[in-house]
Amino acid sequence: MASGASGAELANIVNEAALRAVRDGRACATQADMEESIEVVIAGYQKKNAILTNKEKQIVAYHEIGHALVAAKQTNSAPVTKITIIPRTSGALGYTMQVDDGNHYLMSKEEIENKIATLTGGRAAEEVIFGSVTTGASNDIEQATKLARAMITQYGMSEKFDMVAMETVTNQYLGGDTSLACSAETQAQIDKDVVDLVKKQHEKAAQILIENREKLDELAQYLYQKETITGEEFMKILNDEQKIYLE
Amino acid sequence: MASGASGAELANIVNEAALRAVRDGRACATQADMEESIEVVIAGYQKKNAILTNKEKQIVAYHEIGHALVAAKQTNSAPVTKITIIPRTSGALGYTMQVDDGNHYLMSKEEIENKIATLTGGRAAEEVIFGSVTTGASNDIEQATKLARAMITQYGMSEKFDMVAMETVTNQYLGGDTSLACSAETQAQIDKDVVDLVKKQHEKAAQILIENREKLDELAQYLYQKETITGEEFMKILNDEQKIYLE
Amino acid sequence: MASGASGAELANIVNEAALRAVRDGRACATQADMEESIEVVIAGYQKKNAILTNKEKQIVAYHEIGHALVAAKQTNSAPVTKITIIPRTSGALGYTMQVDDGNHYLMSKEEIENKIATLTGGRAAEEVIFGSVTTGASNDIEQATKLARAMITQYGMSEKFDMVAMETVTNQYLGGDTSLACSAETQAQIDKDVVDLVKKQHEKAAQILIENREKLDELAQYLYQKETITGEEFMKILNDEQKIYLE
Amino acid sequence: MASGASGAELANIVNEAALRAVRDGRACATQADMEESIEVVIAGYQKKNAILTNKEKQIVAYHEIGHALVAAKQTNSAPVTKITIIPRTSGALGYTMQVDDGNHYLMSKEEIENKIATLTGGRAAEEVIFGSVTTGASNDIEQATKLARAMITQYGMSEKFDMVAMETVTNQYLGGDTSLACSAETQAQIDKDVVDLVKKQHEKAAQILIENREKLDELAQYLYQKETITGEEFMKILNDEQKIYLE
Amino acid sequence: MASGASGAELANIVNEAALRAVRDGRACATQADMEESIEVVIAGYQKKNAILTNKEKQIVAYHEIGHALVAAKQTNSAPVTKITIIPRTSGALGYTMQVDDGNHYLMSKEEIENKIATLTGGRAAEEVIFGSVTTGASNDIEQATKLARAMITQYGMSEKFDMVAMETVTNQYLGGDTSLACSAETQAQIDKDVVDLVKKQHEKAAQILIENREKLDELAQYLYQKETITGEEFMKILNDEQKIYLE
Amino acid sequence: MASGASGAELANIVNEAALRAVRDGRACATQADMEESIEVVIAGYQKKNAILTNKEKQIVAYHEIGHALVAAKQTNSAPVTKITIIPRTSGALGYTMQVDDGNHYLMSKEEIENKIATLTGGRAAEEVIFGSVTTGASNDIEQATKLARAMITQYGMSEKFDMVAMETVTNQYLGGDTSLACSAETQAQIDKDVVDLVKKQHEKAAQILIENREKLDELAQYLYQKETITGEEFMKILNDEQKIYLE
Repeated sequence: MASGASGAELANIVNEAALRAVRDGRACATQADMEESIEVVIAGYQKKNAILTNKEKQIVAYHEIGHALVAAKQTNSAPVTKITIIPRTSGALGYTMQVDDGNHYLMSKEEIENKIATLTGGRAAEEVIFGSVTTGASNDIEQATKLARAMITQYGMSEKFDMVAMETVTNQYLGGDTSLACSAETQAQIDKDVVDLVKKQHEKAAQILIENREKLDELAQYLYQKETITGEEFMKILNDEQKIYLE
Repeated sequence: MASGASGAELANIVNEAALRAVRDGRACATQADMEESIEVVIAGYQKKNAILTNKEKQIVAYHEIGHALVAAKQTNSAPVTKITIIPRTSGALGYTMQVDDGNHYLMSKEEIENKIATLTGGRAAEEVIFGSVTTGASNDIEQATKLARAMITQYGMSEKFDMVAMETVTNQYLGGDTSLACSAETQAQIDKDVVDLVKKQHEKAAQILIENREKLDELAQYLYQKETITGEEFMKILNDEQKIYLE
Repeated sequence: MASGASGAELANIVNEAALRAVRDGRACATQADMEESIEVVIAGYQKKNAILTNKEKQIVAYHEIGHALVAAKQTNSAPVTKITIIPRTSGALGYTMQVDDGNHYLMSKEEIENKIATLTGGRAAEEVIFGSVTTGASNDIEQATKLARAMITQYGMSEKFDMVAMETVTNQYLGGDTSLACSAETQAQIDKDVVDLVKKQHEKAAQILIENREKLDELAQYLYQKETITGEEFMKILNDEQKIYLE
Repeated sequence: MASGASGAELANIVNEAALRAVRDGRACATQADMEESIEVVIAGYQKKNAILTNKEKQIVAYHEIGHALVAAKQTNSAPVTKITIIPRTSGALGYTMQVDDGNHYLMSKEEIENKIATLTGGRAAEEVIFGSVTTGASNDIEQATKLARAMITQYGMSEKFDMVAMETVTNQYLGGDTSLACSAETQAQIDKDVVDLVKKQHEKAAQILIENREKLDELAQYLYQKETITGEEFMKILNDEQKIYLE
Repeated sequence: MASGASGAELANIVNEAALRAVRDGRACATQADMEESIEVVIAGYQKKNAILTNKEKQIVAYHEIGHALVAAKQTNSAPVTKITIIPRTSGALGYTMQVDDGNHYLMSKEEIENKIATLTGGRAAEEVIFGSVTTGASNDIEQATKLARAMITQYGMSEKFDMVAMETVTNQYLGGDTSLACSAETQAQIDKDVVDLVKKQHEKAAQILIENREKLDELAQYLYQKETITGEEFMKILNDEQKIYLE
Repeated sequence: MASGASGAELANIVNEAALRAVRDGRACATQADMEESIEVVIAGYQKKNAILTNKEKQIVAYHEIGHALVAAKQTNSAPVTKITIIPRTSGALGYTMQVDDGNHYLMSKEEIENKIATLTGGRAAEEVIFGSVTTGASNDIEQATKLARAMITQYGMSEKFDMVAMETVTNQYLGGDTSLACSAETQAQIDKDVVDLVKKQHEKAAQILIENREKLDELAQYLYQKETITGEEFMKILNDEQKIYLE
């Protein structure tokens, strides 16, 4: 699961789309050029020679739908614009493009917690369906850890530390670096709180998937066969508006 | 919430004001040029394309009034010259220019504690009004932490460590760097004291806002609509001297 | 025991095979050129002047068969394509080329645990047969430690830390370095979990070898005399399809 | 409170006095040139535009007299040649020039303890008179901490560590750097001893000021009005030899 | 006590022998040239002007025989080719050239333990004979510590840590550096285990020397008078095949 | 108290003596030139303008005799060739040149303990005579700490750590740097042992001085008046062979 794009990435995206139009002999880049180039910059080119076993493809399909389903059940809206399980040169086996809901500037504690739950959704799906876990969640784990740690050490979102910053922070206003060390004892407390925080969201994600097991299966099988689906397709199946006929 | 200005910033302020006068074809910089240039240097240019959701704008309005109201109730005077919720290129969503009360050279323990309370006032307003917290207080958290930590480790304002410096300090008289390390055990004690100190002021700030809930709503709604208000407007409303008619 | 090959190594392998063909005056590299060159790149050239004592050769033979036998009993298939006890210039005294089962992209917790058991199989064989241990397992120890540590700190495969990353990790998607430190207390817990995890697999490996003691002796003696055997020979003896007549 | 002068500072002092004589068109530097230049080098030029509030000026006057009075009551002689509360460009709000009693080469444990008491005298005066503390003592805190730490870790003046050096020390005889680390446990003990040592002297200083409250008031009021007084004036008032008539 | 030789040292040895032959006007380096050059490269030139007291010479003789006797009693064969107590420019006061028993490639736990016992044999001899210890064992201490530490942290030879590597290790196969940190708690356990391990071998060494006290005296006196003896002389005296007549 | 001389210092000593002969118009350097130059290189030139108070001079005289007397009573021989209390440019207030007893190459545990006792003798004399301590012992403290620490961490002279090296050591044979870290727990134990070790010798030194109080007074008074005495004078007075008539 990947989200957001830096300024340098945005520049690359535009460049990539222009090159694509040139290669095809077209005068200007189309919406399709842009969409493809977004994926290229964020996740790399499609990795034609990457041949996953069927078992792996199944796991990846459930993993990606796990993310999307947990996100959708928390926001009551389409969480993504596109879900794909075509491996990319970045190493990603699947890829989920997130919908931006327009709320860029402030994130509430609940929104961050939901984001962590969504990040754990991929692994939770593997557990619910296969009763086992894989290395496929390592990037989700890293992102969830960073968010949970920031809540406690930078955003003052833990009861224990109140409005006290506990780790190195870069001053956003004046540009300088500011380092606030903390004691070994406090670090141990932070570790415990981070684990508690992530575990709680992980359990919430698993609960959501268990309660929506049928949709999880239906969507994962659909993604397994189509390999790439849109957010609209995802929502239609989720809301029983689209009947899928699996091959 | 931002305060003070370094020497380099002061030079930039004057420069920016001169450029502004030149751009407008005027022979000399006016008071208005200076005021605008102060904001540019401290908080960056107005960010025209930053479109906050209404919910975000509400949160920012209450956050800024939270700072100002806690400050005003502690000093019995206008705490600010200007409050604005127009986003700036520095990343600040709102901005509060502080009144300097002429007391530059010495700060008492009580004055620093009040400053910490004021810093926590933004988040406290979010909690009182929305029952939730956002990432918007991260810079306030960082500043409050630094002040609280300095009280304990540099200013000898904790009972436990008496007049003992506990962390790296730069010698103000002779220019050299001086590093005074302390043990892991002492660091743990400092962390606990910092949290206690900030928590106490945070509770005080929340109490002030609860007791002045009506004014908090009135001022926040006024700021929400006007986007920028002066210290005089702020005080008139606070002292019931100005009747506001919200659109 | 060695496994896998990096991109640079793959390039070297092809180069080495081409050079070998040229040296022999042949127009193109054969399968045999490739096989030899693979070993050269991974383990170095055969070390002609390395003369092990008979006792050492015995230990190495049991060590390598220990790896292979534990692997075979766990997967029910040929774990290797080739086993050799001809020392190499890399310092390796024996060498086992692994079969790739096509499952490159995801590794389940059970698969990693089996891999750790296989890594401990060499030392376990020494213990079972000679009742003593040697320095020959130091590379296996290092690899087993890294896998066990990654399970706990990166892959979220420990119950205690759930989906929380505990050590420095490089972000696979965006290329930057990311460091997530953890407290001394957490480090101590990680160390304990790593030891428990490895110890459990080590015991499993020893159990497999004790239960297959006869085959262990038969295969080790065969390897001792032949010095290099293929995966097919290994499986035939293991499945009693080949009667071996030791000289 | 400031004391002593390095070799480089001494050179600057002579230079500064010569420049002063030249500026005034005199052939040689006078005693007055030297005295003024000493202050310039140690504490910077007089800061003409620094306008303290009356409250701040009162605090600084009591702070400086606090230092001088504690020193005088411990040595039974004039502790200073000059006391001033004219701010300097170094950032110092007041300044006390110490009398050198000729004992340069060795310092006894008691002399260092008295020096720490004198350093705490400024803050103690603020506490006794205003019942509050300010940031004005931060430099005193740093110096007192260094002295107390050196007593315990370098000078063998603690019962617990006997004649054992506990921290990094530069070898005075042979010029090289020598680093002697110590354990976390020992560091914690050192921190505790430093705090106990400073606290004891701080209490002694406060006791001296409480017992001489009348003289403290008299001298501080005198300094407040005169802004600069000599050591002789200080001693005459202290010994009731001079009747002061405050304006 | 010194052992082994690196590649660079081997090159120096050959070079040194050639130079020696040239200096003597001979066409080729003899066995004697090689032997002398080995000592020069490993231990430095003979230090003509180093005049030890008789007491020191006695201590060194017992120290070197201590090493050799403990080694011989453990292996039942000549442990050395040469023992000398002529000081060398490397700072070594004595020097023992080890016999290589042909077992280069693997070391068993028991062999490393014996090696540690041999390293402690020098100090053990001092204790048994003089009831006192000197600084002469500092290099033996360093080597014994490294071996014991490696047994526990790299070779998986401790029950507690099983097959887990606990400290920084360089990957022997692929050349890169690998660092595996461990927690403070684990470090404390490692320190305890290292001390236990060395202490046990030290006691074994002392026991061997006490049981062979007569031979220890006889050999040490012989070495004291001859200053340099061969491995054959050592074994003949040990096996009562040579009667020595001390001067 | 200073001891020994490095190679670079020896070169400087010879150079300094030659320059001295040249300045005096003599063809070759005399024994007196060498003696003076030794002191110049080790302790610096005589510091003509350093004027100690009588009290300081008394303390320094007792301090130096303290060193010499503790040394003499432990070895039963003249411990020094010269004792002086003329300050040197190195910062040393007194200076004691040690007799070298020819035992360069090995130091027994008892010899190091005696050396530590001698180092504490200066401070012990201050305590016995003045009931107070000064900063004058800081260099002795540093040297005593280093010796005690080396006994425990490098020389295997502590019962607890047996023949295990506990801190960074440079390999004397092969020239490389070797770093052996140890755990925090072990560091705490080392600190405790170092303090115990030094304290014990300090007490021994004090006991020696108390038992020889009369000689301590007599010798210190003699040194106070003469400012420089020889080892022969010291021994004659100590053995009642010389009657001193103080002025």
